[in-house]
Amino acid sequence: MHNIMKIGIDILGIDEPSRIINFVNSYKDDEVELYVYGLEENLNQITKTENIIKNVCTEEVLMSDDAARVHRKKKDASMIRMLADLNNDVIDVAISGGSTGAFMASSLFMLGRIEGISKPGLASLLPTRSEHKFLFTDLGANVEAKPDDLVNYAKLGQLYMKYIYNIETPSVALLNVGVEESKGNKVYKEAHKLLKEDITNFKGNIEAREILEHKYDIVIADGFAGNILLKSIEGVASSLGKMIKGIFLENLITKISALLVKKGITAFKKKFDYSEYGGAFLLGIKKPSIKIHGSSDENALYYAVQQAKQIHKTKLYGIMIETMEKGETN
Amino acid sequence: MHNIMKIGIDILGIDEPSRIINFVNSYKDDEVELYVYGLEENLNQITKTENIIKNVCTEEVLMSDDAARVHRKKKDASMIRMLADLNNDVIDVAISGGSTGAFMASSLFMLGRIEGISKPGLASLLPTRSEHKFLFTDLGANVEAKPDDLVNYAKLGQLYMKYIYNIETPSVALLNVGVEESKGNKVYKEAHKLLKEDITNFKGNIEAREILEHKYDIVIADGFAGNILLKSIEGVASSLGKMIKGIFLENLITKISALLVKKGITAFKKKFDYSEYGGAFLLGIKKPSIKIHGSSDENALYYAVQQAKQIHKTKLYGIMIETMEKGETN
Repeated sequence: MHNIMKIGIDILGIDEPSRIINFVNSYKDDEVELYVYGLEENLNQITKTENIIKNVCTEEVLMSDDAARVHRKKKDASMIRMLADLNNDVIDVAISGGSTGAFMASSLFMLGRIEGISKPGLASLLPTRSEHKFLFTDLGANVEAKPDDLVNYAKLGQLYMKYIYNIETPSVALLNVGVEESKGNKVYKEAHKLLKEDITNFKGNIEAREILEHKYDIVIADGFAGNILLKSIEGVASSLGKMIKGIFLENLITKISALLVKKGITAFKKKFDYSEYGGAFLLGIKKPSIKIHGSSDENALYYAVQQAKQIHKTKLYGIMIETMEKGETN
Repeated sequence: MHNIMKIGIDILGIDEPSRIINFVNSYKDDEVELYVYGLEENLNQITKTENIIKNVCTEEVLMSDDAARVHRKKKDASMIRMLADLNNDVIDVAISGGSTGAFMASSLFMLGRIEGISKPGLASLLPTRSEHKFLFTDLGANVEAKPDDLVNYAKLGQLYMKYIYNIETPSVALLNVGVEESKGNKVYKEAHKLLKEDITNFKGNIEAREILEHKYDIVIADGFAGNILLKSIEGVASSLGKMIKGIFLENLITKISALLVKKGITAFKKKFDYSEYGGAFLLGIKKPSIKIHGSSDENALYYAVQQAKQIHKTKLYGIMIETMEKGETN
């Protein structure tokens, strides 16, 4: 079979590795060869034999490992072995649910930065109140972002949304403390100026208040504010969810009420279940490594593999490298 | 009557000035003399005569005014006249619902900074999922905060919570992108170190994910991240509220369901109605000026006046000035 894609999956790192085993055993796709990385005991549970390459590893990246050094200290850990194979073109795309810090640092050190990128930013699709989804970056990789970094995230984000979602010229907004150009600190004021000059379809600032309401394709922030925003969306949604659950559980009447709106509540929860959005990825590194949530299930894995296929088929990373080298966009 | 408090109220600036007129006309309090500032047409509607001093102004601070210059350009605007009276000890505390930018800049320029404070921070009480409330600063006054600024907000915040809420040694947490000491950018890493050295009962970092769940008395952030956090809490709560409303309005069955949980939903909404928490105020200026929301009603004004009384009775601002001059805390 020619032109088969090679997708790496790190069995360790997610809360329930059995979910990955289930996914691998049942996944049918003639276009894809799955390279799985795990301990022998994990790999022994894989019963599927076709289009599976098992890579027996003896180590595991733990949350307690030093993120910046783990790629040198645990060379036989599943995440590290997989990233090494990605770097050596043994596989085309890598998927891991392990420690975000280790994933980001190891991807950066092992796969390398695209020319012109000083610090990559972590990107992911996020939901809004409508069906609209948007690419948000940086989720927390670069907490000392410079204005140029933010412009680069916009450029690379536009390529991602263009090639993966067929949006011709994706719109870009800058997270800020007000919509006026003059708002923000020095980094944001300068970033606003540069984005206005360099980015076609730059729409100006967006306030955090509008983050679940807007229609932009891409929202840009530094890793500090971006991480605060991401976690406050998650935290407020979770806290309010608990409060609403409390309201429904109060007595028999309210429990009946809960049954009556069950369908709507399920749809509501599904919206904030990010698993169908694919994983997060570093904008600015040379090869595609995808970070899925530690709580990922078979469904989340399925979408991450589809995302990996799209990234590979569209030759997105080659285009990113070429675009940044030429210093051009669009 | 001796020892009567003089509280200034800016009639303009809130969405419905009639709310202030109603409040003033019905407020009964022998301890307080209300100094009201507004246009002649507003003041004519005040029928109460006892303990009322009317200050006829000819101008109004507008959202479109240059915040940094309005105190020099519109000296006869109600907000500016009131702040001038506060600075000249004609009144003891000032309350305004006008433009936050103009309020912050004019308070800073007209009332002056406390010695040792480089840039004041905007503070306000915020709710959590439980009954617990906490003081959050900076909401957006100082978007280029230095580590020392954050330490000063902790010191002044502790005095506020001690004198206004009788908490002996209020606990302090630093908003950050992770709980570990090593997390954050340079400003936050250095701030963490200084807070640990200087602040009794400093509890370390708090992630945005926990912002509606924690038990700290004070949470500190720079004005950029703080503003992003505040607005994302408001925005996510508002967006999710709309989604839930949509679920309940879908059909007759779901509308019946809504009736069954009406009590709980009303209590839920009340929690995110900040009006009973008093207004926001700048930590680090010499005199107490209180910023209420533009959408404030009679209830919000009532609580702002109670907050003003507490601030004046406890001599909080004198204590803040003295503490910072001595360079001591607690």
